[in-house]
Amino acid sequence: MPSTAAHFADRLLAACEEKGAPVCVGLDPVYAKLPRTLRAEGVDPSQQARAAVDAIGQFCAGVIDAVADLVPAVKIQSACFERYLWVGVEALHGLIHHAKQAGLLVILDGKRGDIGISSEHYAAGCLREPRFTDLGAVTGPDALTVNGYLGVDGLDPFIAAAVQEDKGLFALVRTSNPGGDALQREALARGGSVAEQVARLIAQAGDHCVGTRGYSALGAVVGATKGAEAAALRRLMPRQIFLVPGFGAQGGGADDVRACFHEDGTGAIITASRSVLYPFDAEDAGADWRGAVRAAAVQLRDEVAGVLGRG
Amino acid sequence: MPSTAAHFADRLLAACEEKGAPVCVGLDPVYAKLPRTLRAEGVDPSQQARAAVDAIGQFCAGVIDAVADLVPAVKIQSACFERYLWVGVEALHGLIHHAKQAGLLVILDGKRGDIGISSEHYAAGCLREPRFTDLGAVTGPDALTVNGYLGVDGLDPFIAAAVQEDKGLFALVRTSNPGGDALQREALARGGSVAEQVARLIAQAGDHCVGTRGYSALGAVVGATKGAEAAALRRLMPRQIFLVPGFGAQGGGADDVRACFHEDGTGAIITASRSVLYPFDAEDAGADWRGAVRAAAVQLRDEVAGVLGRG
Repeated sequence: MPSTAAHFADRLLAACEEKGAPVCVGLDPVYAKLPRTLRAEGVDPSQQARAAVDAIGQFCAGVIDAVADLVPAVKIQSACFERYLWVGVEALHGLIHHAKQAGLLVILDGKRGDIGISSEHYAAGCLREPRFTDLGAVTGPDALTVNGYLGVDGLDPFIAAAVQEDKGLFALVRTSNPGGDALQREALARGGSVAEQVARLIAQAGDHCVGTRGYSALGAVVGATKGAEAAALRRLMPRQIFLVPGFGAQGGGADDVRACFHEDGTGAIITASRSVLYPFDAEDAGADWRGAVRAAAVQLRDEVAGVLGRG
Repeated sequence: MPSTAAHFADRLLAACEEKGAPVCVGLDPVYAKLPRTLRAEGVDPSQQARAAVDAIGQFCAGVIDAVADLVPAVKIQSACFERYLWVGVEALHGLIHHAKQAGLLVILDGKRGDIGISSEHYAAGCLREPRFTDLGAVTGPDALTVNGYLGVDGLDPFIAAAVQEDKGLFALVRTSNPGGDALQREALARGGSVAEQVARLIAQAGDHCVGTRGYSALGAVVGATKGAEAAALRRLMPRQIFLVPGFGAQGGGADDVRACFHEDGTGAIITASRSVLYPFDAEDAGADWRGAVRAAAVQLRDEVAGVLGRG
């Protein structure tokens, strides 16, 4: 059970084993893509924040309930909620709470990064367990994505928070978008690429917070469309769990994904968003959209298990 | 007047000329540092979000009122508010509105960055003018800080929003924290540093959105403690306005700052946070703390004007 092992990496590995595959459903809800039955007649989401957020919240809660017994984790895209200002942020926290209650690990995809005390503030708001007594039942996520361009000292407050609270981080190392190449793939004078330099910094920064299964609380985001590079990064970051977005709809295939794992089949968690969230026609979907989401999550789980030879 | 010229860079230059110096007060409020008179007896900010946010909001509104006729812009650190979850985000938007009403340009220091549609969501929540009719009077900032590690395609949705709404961006290029060196100063095989490669990408990405004064809506964050590097970055990014944090309390001096400007004294805006926000003893400050803040803002303005030979 995820809750018995304290260290984040240990909890994540246990949850992946319990559910049968290291997969994660990405919650990137977009109002226009919701099943028609959830969208109220005449609502303009650019003008009616509360109505839009209500619908998005209902959809995400439905997805969580549909997949909770199938997958170990969900990754929630903070931007989808922040676009609705504080109303969205409140709903985001409601969903974190809902997903935790449903037994899922929650990765908040916030890509935060700053320096010094500002990173402390972000760690308090986006990672640490809230201790507010005046905001009702509120729960922090299990892990947060972070951006280390500003340097490892900017990540230190996040790492300190993760260690103190048995939570995790995934630092951006190599992203799967085309524009990532122009910076991340640049070769350094002393060898390797910019992404590999980031990988070295992350490996070193995460070395002091390794759990009983050999993985650090500080993981890495490595896009699924970069198979050859993933293998090199795997060697540079042996103790990092790779959070691998881009499987399925965003173009990553089985070989790219396999390179992110160690030979024993541990060391990565594969996320898919659109292929699981929207396996229905938004205009025609009836009340059975949850069944379609569930079937897509089963397919994701089985595909990734197949890639790892457990199919 | 800032409001007559549409393009963000034109508005910023006009505001700097009107107020006499290109300076910006950074609002990075921390509860424990507030004047004692604003902190209610017995409030624990880690448990009472609303009371903490009320005090922080009052303090920031007081600072805004104290400096509004002296400086062209304020930079609000989003993290200081996000640590109080949705209550903080609501207060953040109240302060943006307050500062705009006071005639200030507002830079939201959110350091956001993602790819594709997620960047669109962030641009909607953190940069575009909100059009919600159900959230009361709500105003967007004039500009946002962004992180381009994921690549320029991740910045494109932010740039599109800035162009459409006559707003601005400041992309992280070179930060003044010690840990920034380990990545940003690394030499590339084809010459220059990682920060210089980012500078080239930013210069190119911002080339199509230049205002009448010759500056792009896409600016750059360049730390004040890196004078020699600032000169090289100035040459690589002739059309970027540099947002320069780190003056004063964080260690940057006059020579470092001067290198961020073109010879005509335009091209940068210098921000100071702690030296202006906290020129008083938090325990002893009476109702006159606003006067101390105002005096510190005058000093900042005069120091920067002096650096530019306008003293």
